[in-house]
Amino acid sequence: MSDQHDLRYYTEGVDVPETPPPASDPEPWGETKVVGKPLPRIDGYERVSGSAVYPSDVSLPRMVFGAILRCPHPHAVVTNVDTAQAEKLPGVRAVLSAFQGDRATQAYADLIRDRLMPHHCRYEGEPVAAVAADTPYQAWDAIRAVHVAYDVQPFLADERRALEADAPKVHDSGNQVSPTQVYERGDAERGFAEADVVLQQEYRTECEIHTPMELHGCVAKWDGDSLTVWESTQGVYNVQAQVAAALDLPLSKVRVVGHYMGGGFGSKLGAGKYTLIAALLAKRTARPVKLFLTREETYLTVGNRPPANMRLKAGVRRDGTLTALEYHATGTGGAFRAGGTSALDWLVKDLYTCPNVRTELTDLYIHAGPARPFRAPGHPQCAWALEQMMDALADAIGMDPVELRLKNVPTVSQARDGAPPYTTTGLAECLTKGAEAFGWAEARRRSHNAQDSGHVRRGVGMAAALWVAGGGGPPSTVIVKLFADGSVNLNMGASDIGTGTKTVMAMAAAEELGVDPADIQVEHADTSSTQFATASGGSKTVPTEAPTVRAAAIEVKQQLLEMAAQELEVDQSSLELDRGKVVCTTDSAKTTEISRLQSLRRRRSITGVGYRGPNPSGKAVIPFAAQFCEVEVNTRTGETRVLRFLGAHDSGRVMNRLTYQNQVFGGITMGIGFAMTEARVLDRDQTGKLANKNWHDYKIPTAMDVPTDMTCVPIDRPDPEANIAGAKGIGEPATIPTAAAIANAVYHATGVRVTGTPMTPARLVQALTETERGG
Amino acid sequence: MSDQHDLRYYTEGVDVPETPPPASDPEPWGETKVVGKPLPRIDGYERVSGSAVYPSDVSLPRMVFGAILRCPHPHAVVTNVDTAQAEKLPGVRAVLSAFQGDRATQAYADLIRDRLMPHHCRYEGEPVAAVAADTPYQAWDAIRAVHVAYDVQPFLADERRALEADAPKVHDSGNQVSPTQVYERGDAERGFAEADVVLQQEYRTECEIHTPMELHGCVAKWDGDSLTVWESTQGVYNVQAQVAAALDLPLSKVRVVGHYMGGGFGSKLGAGKYTLIAALLAKRTARPVKLFLTREETYLTVGNRPPANMRLKAGVRRDGTLTALEYHATGTGGAFRAGGTSALDWLVKDLYTCPNVRTELTDLYIHAGPARPFRAPGHPQCAWALEQMMDALADAIGMDPVELRLKNVPTVSQARDGAPPYTTTGLAECLTKGAEAFGWAEARRRSHNAQDSGHVRRGVGMAAALWVAGGGGPPSTVIVKLFADGSVNLNMGASDIGTGTKTVMAMAAAEELGVDPADIQVEHADTSSTQFATASGGSKTVPTEAPTVRAAAIEVKQQLLEMAAQELEVDQSSLELDRGKVVCTTDSAKTTEISRLQSLRRRRSITGVGYRGPNPSGKAVIPFAAQFCEVEVNTRTGETRVLRFLGAHDSGRVMNRLTYQNQVFGGITMGIGFAMTEARVLDRDQTGKLANKNWHDYKIPTAMDVPTDMTCVPIDRPDPEANIAGAKGIGEPATIPTAAAIANAVYHATGVRVTGTPMTPARLVQALTETERGG
Repeated sequence: MSDQHDLRYYTEGVDVPETPPPASDPEPWGETKVVGKPLPRIDGYERVSGSAVYPSDVSLPRMVFGAILRCPHPHAVVTNVDTAQAEKLPGVRAVLSAFQGDRATQAYADLIRDRLMPHHCRYEGEPVAAVAADTPYQAWDAIRAVHVAYDVQPFLADERRALEADAPKVHDSGNQVSPTQVYERGDAERGFAEADVVLQQEYRTECEIHTPMELHGCVAKWDGDSLTVWESTQGVYNVQAQVAAALDLPLSKVRVVGHYMGGGFGSKLGAGKYTLIAALLAKRTARPVKLFLTREETYLTVGNRPPANMRLKAGVRRDGTLTALEYHATGTGGAFRAGGTSALDWLVKDLYTCPNVRTELTDLYIHAGPARPFRAPGHPQCAWALEQMMDALADAIGMDPVELRLKNVPTVSQARDGAPPYTTTGLAECLTKGAEAFGWAEARRRSHNAQDSGHVRRGVGMAAALWVAGGGGPPSTVIVKLFADGSVNLNMGASDIGTGTKTVMAMAAAEELGVDPADIQVEHADTSSTQFATASGGSKTVPTEAPTVRAAAIEVKQQLLEMAAQELEVDQSSLELDRGKVVCTTDSAKTTEISRLQSLRRRRSITGVGYRGPNPSGKAVIPFAAQFCEVEVNTRTGETRVLRFLGAHDSGRVMNRLTYQNQVFGGITMGIGFAMTEARVLDRDQTGKLANKNWHDYKIPTAMDVPTDMTCVPIDRPDPEANIAGAKGIGEPATIPTAAAIANAVYHATGVRVTGTPMTPARLVQALTETERGG
Repeated sequence: MSDQHDLRYYTEGVDVPETPPPASDPEPWGETKVVGKPLPRIDGYERVSGSAVYPSDVSLPRMVFGAILRCPHPHAVVTNVDTAQAEKLPGVRAVLSAFQGDRATQAYADLIRDRLMPHHCRYEGEPVAAVAADTPYQAWDAIRAVHVAYDVQPFLADERRALEADAPKVHDSGNQVSPTQVYERGDAERGFAEADVVLQQEYRTECEIHTPMELHGCVAKWDGDSLTVWESTQGVYNVQAQVAAALDLPLSKVRVVGHYMGGGFGSKLGAGKYTLIAALLAKRTARPVKLFLTREETYLTVGNRPPANMRLKAGVRRDGTLTALEYHATGTGGAFRAGGTSALDWLVKDLYTCPNVRTELTDLYIHAGPARPFRAPGHPQCAWALEQMMDALADAIGMDPVELRLKNVPTVSQARDGAPPYTTTGLAECLTKGAEAFGWAEARRRSHNAQDSGHVRRGVGMAAALWVAGGGGPPSTVIVKLFADGSVNLNMGASDIGTGTKTVMAMAAAEELGVDPADIQVEHADTSSTQFATASGGSKTVPTEAPTVRAAAIEVKQQLLEMAAQELEVDQSSLELDRGKVVCTTDSAKTTEISRLQSLRRRRSITGVGYRGPNPSGKAVIPFAAQFCEVEVNTRTGETRVLRFLGAHDSGRVMNRLTYQNQVFGGITMGIGFAMTEARVLDRDQTGKLANKNWHDYKIPTAMDVPTDMTCVPIDRPDPEANIAGAKGIGEPATIPTAAAIANAVYHATGVRVTGTPMTPARLVQALTETERGG
């Protein structure tokens, strides 16, 4: 459970040694029969009927319930934990703290004291003790009966004050995580000198807290010295590795299962402290332990998109050529090294062609819960600055914002060593096709004309994006097993985090094997029974797993056709698979149902193993996006309604039109929350505590906040160089430009630029008042 | 759910098309580090602590309980089933019969009427109706409230009367299942003419009923149109195929799981009617349904070793050369075609070299529950006749019984087409090493001397055997996955039916990969998550799966060593795996822990697929056995105590000394039951009903009936021609000669030959009295 996260989460494994490679890459799919269609989820029945067993639904015989006592202060030293009263309460099976030892968990005393329940608590919510009891109510009663003595310390709750001389120190080393990270190419000063227009602006995005539908937690059960964990996770193999390392167990003795999960968005890429606490409580009670956090606990501890304080200076020529970008940003991952500025400058460095770029990132400590990867780490924040700046530059040189961006579309990844070309750059198409489908020019003209006509004003805005990763890569192994009747079992380690992974992968296998996707059974996300996959995150699940599934299906297909050719006494090259049949193209009398092949019936199954091939050498595989929206602002009340949204996305081949669109709409929805309502509120002056740790005070978008008029425009151009499925990631790009597009639309409607999220009515009214543009 | 069974159960798959073969067979294991050792079960903790979840332990949310109403008559026609009262009882969710229809199961009306609950009931225990209710008690209350009108018919409860003119007809076609099956080689009449001694004797063995510890049954659960069945079974893939066929579902929509099971012995090779009834009740109630039979129901319906009526005539020369064997036998599989004489003549045809053999088998119907494969079908019955006859022949020509058998040890399988040679024939060694370890000559002399010294007399006896199958064969697929830390996951479809399969297979993988078997996690017996394996029966699990596991492990090893050679910059041929290390034989400084290989850590796992290679062409792979025992007979009371037993077995390589010995002792124990106490008692005159359908009246051996002095003498000669593990089957051979050996010992003690099982005190007293040899 490293508290650090960085780009490795998204690009891990690119340098793995070769897995057994296919003899040669197969031909790209031609016209597809299944892939690309809008197929509803194959597990829709289970999800909708409630028969799907999510980790939080797991209920085992003799199971008891865990709960965690958490430090109520942002900074305190625990001087004593008195569990005597709690231990006597009815139903209480175990109380665990760094101040109490016992035989069952004594081997883990260091782990408890140093990592799980440290005496020195540096954020509100650090675990101090844990209990297991027969019912959740008894567990919480016991938590209340644990008496903790705290030595409360001064706190720091605002990273903007972190480097002030009198700021409380989070660590002895100070409040800066590491030396400021500087990136430079070309000469920014010269670039600004060459510009016709130079603008500079400060921006800030607030901290957005993870609020997945399913709470974080697990059920842990020991069988002898083997541990099974049912965890709500994006990556069972990550959880397995972290639990095994922490508990000093071989990987074969830690089974992690995550068959369903109710959302993660980056906050469930690995094990939590709760996972290890559940395992220790289970060891101590010799019973299965269920430990799921409350919503309040998730707000405190499971992670966030860190706040960003950004200053961006940009130079442009009158013809729209960018000449220089200079960017300073600070962020905070909380009290520990947690990637507070991860990828926070990537778009500045890589989205547009620009010869002179300088960025500086400074990551700071504060007394608050940890940052975690949050759907496109760094990118929406950076887009908030860069894409508003592009809008302002366009305004300044009198150019259409789409046009300005088209002027600067890159073909190489400038921020990467050697500036490798992109396998495909769909950004120009996203911009032009998106603008066309949105009716950009007309809408812009119409809004503009209506702009001075009253206190309810409309505006349109747009923003573009790329996502630093999204190409996926090895390692990944998938097994496809064809049953004797031609139906298929697909075995993969990847989690379906709600994005439709199971459905998409069934389609990939169905396409290759010519069978109905409904006849494909998917076994997934279980370290014991399925093959290795990296965690589902970084928009890499489809581009990693779909090619692997295809490779495995091809293995099966080759064996099947060989067998069929022998049985049917025809040349193998004359055979194809189509809709459950082995079709003989030279002699239609030989065409037969797969299920009627006697040789298959005797052999009973065919197994094929697929490995994810390496990514193309010297190329970057990257998805692109452009989003367009229209808003209506009441300049008297500051209320903003998002009226319509359009996402134009280049993520290579569209594997499933429906789940692809779901991702785009979901990303936009999330971006609306980021732009309009979501913000962590720390009481930075009085207590340092989180003031809005519930769904009432921390507002995520509801159906009422999302426009009914949403459009998805997929570019849908397979990228055969990227991988043998031709697909790139879509999950994260879908949320990157959203907030900036709204801000640009608000500017278009009101003439006011809101540089800080969230764009609440109060903030907007204030901005309108300051600029005297209120209604 | 075919009611038929035959040798296909044991030899299935021999003619499957080639699975992808290894480039060349690997070298046989040299000196082994793990294989052959007496390793306790790797799942011992789970089994002993009770944490192992057997199918009968499965408990699911919202689960309801099924029960079956069964025909109480051996022969009756059901004219009406009135379920109105039952349906109104509290907790009752569904009542199912051929007389009631409903929407949920209407597609299966034919299945219910024609196969599950036929109007014409031909044995006591045929299902007539079924219910599902919230508790088992409510289900049984409802069963009692179903009113059935029976038209009771005349019955036939004794196959010995089946061909009498006035016998009630079980089927319109008559009471003979098929034409008498005749086998002939050479000329038996000429053989008898050439003999010095010709003996003839009639023998009978009683019907032995399956009584595994865990009852038969399952839990069935639907998710939409997908069915999951947790079944107590020897073969999940068999159950899957049968359920899918009966319910007209693709195999991918039927998942069968059987992680633990409490004994099957041949009675759980496939689905039961209860499986389908549970599935239909689950469909109708839209809830998981648990349906386990009562012990009474298992006695009535799950199967038996059919009774055998045998007449054997044998000729021998004074020098011990067998000249002719002639054998007639009848049996019954009950009311349906169920292999009533399966393999009942095999030992006569194949155990000893004999040029002139004639056998006749006649399978008959009676109104009784079905026969099922029962640990070595046909063989213990045939051994009861043949091995007593060999004893009598030895007596007649004044030769030691071991000597007589040694004279006639075969090297080819005479009963098979082309008389193929055995890959190995350990029979002579079983006889000589067994006799030596038992102290046969001395014991025989001692007993003989003591023979006239009182009413408590000791005797020794022996018998030999082979098992018709036991070589295993394709198809089978196994996957081995090496984790990043060098620990291992083994994925196979085979069930561990209590014999230690998981342990043995972990050892095979551990041997090849040089890791601790304790670090091997086994995932097995699940059609969704594991690879295809045939059912665990026919003593073929070890010879089928162990080579397949080895093949998969070799695949992993090759990949691992290739990777290590590259990382360590040494020649791959200099590398070996040993105790978790990659050992470099040319440069010890290069030796490293598997877990420290960076290339493995980055790749995260290595997957290897193994296929069972074909059996040797033109050869027979067969296990052999000889057993020796000593008994003490009280000639006044007829009580017999088995004092000691020794099993000498040639089953090729011993994979695990402990589980091998367990099989031998278990087989002997079962044989003691067959010899001494077990017999189905049908009330053949009055009611035709089973009179002893419980553990009080149907006596299986307890600890008190089994000698503490048991010895296992494995010949332990790897059979490299058989397969790449060198192992043959041990489960069934272990029980074949037991009963005959006891009968021979009783003869040696008393001079009385008991030709019918079970050798109860009453029967022995009667025999002693008839021959005036009582005490």
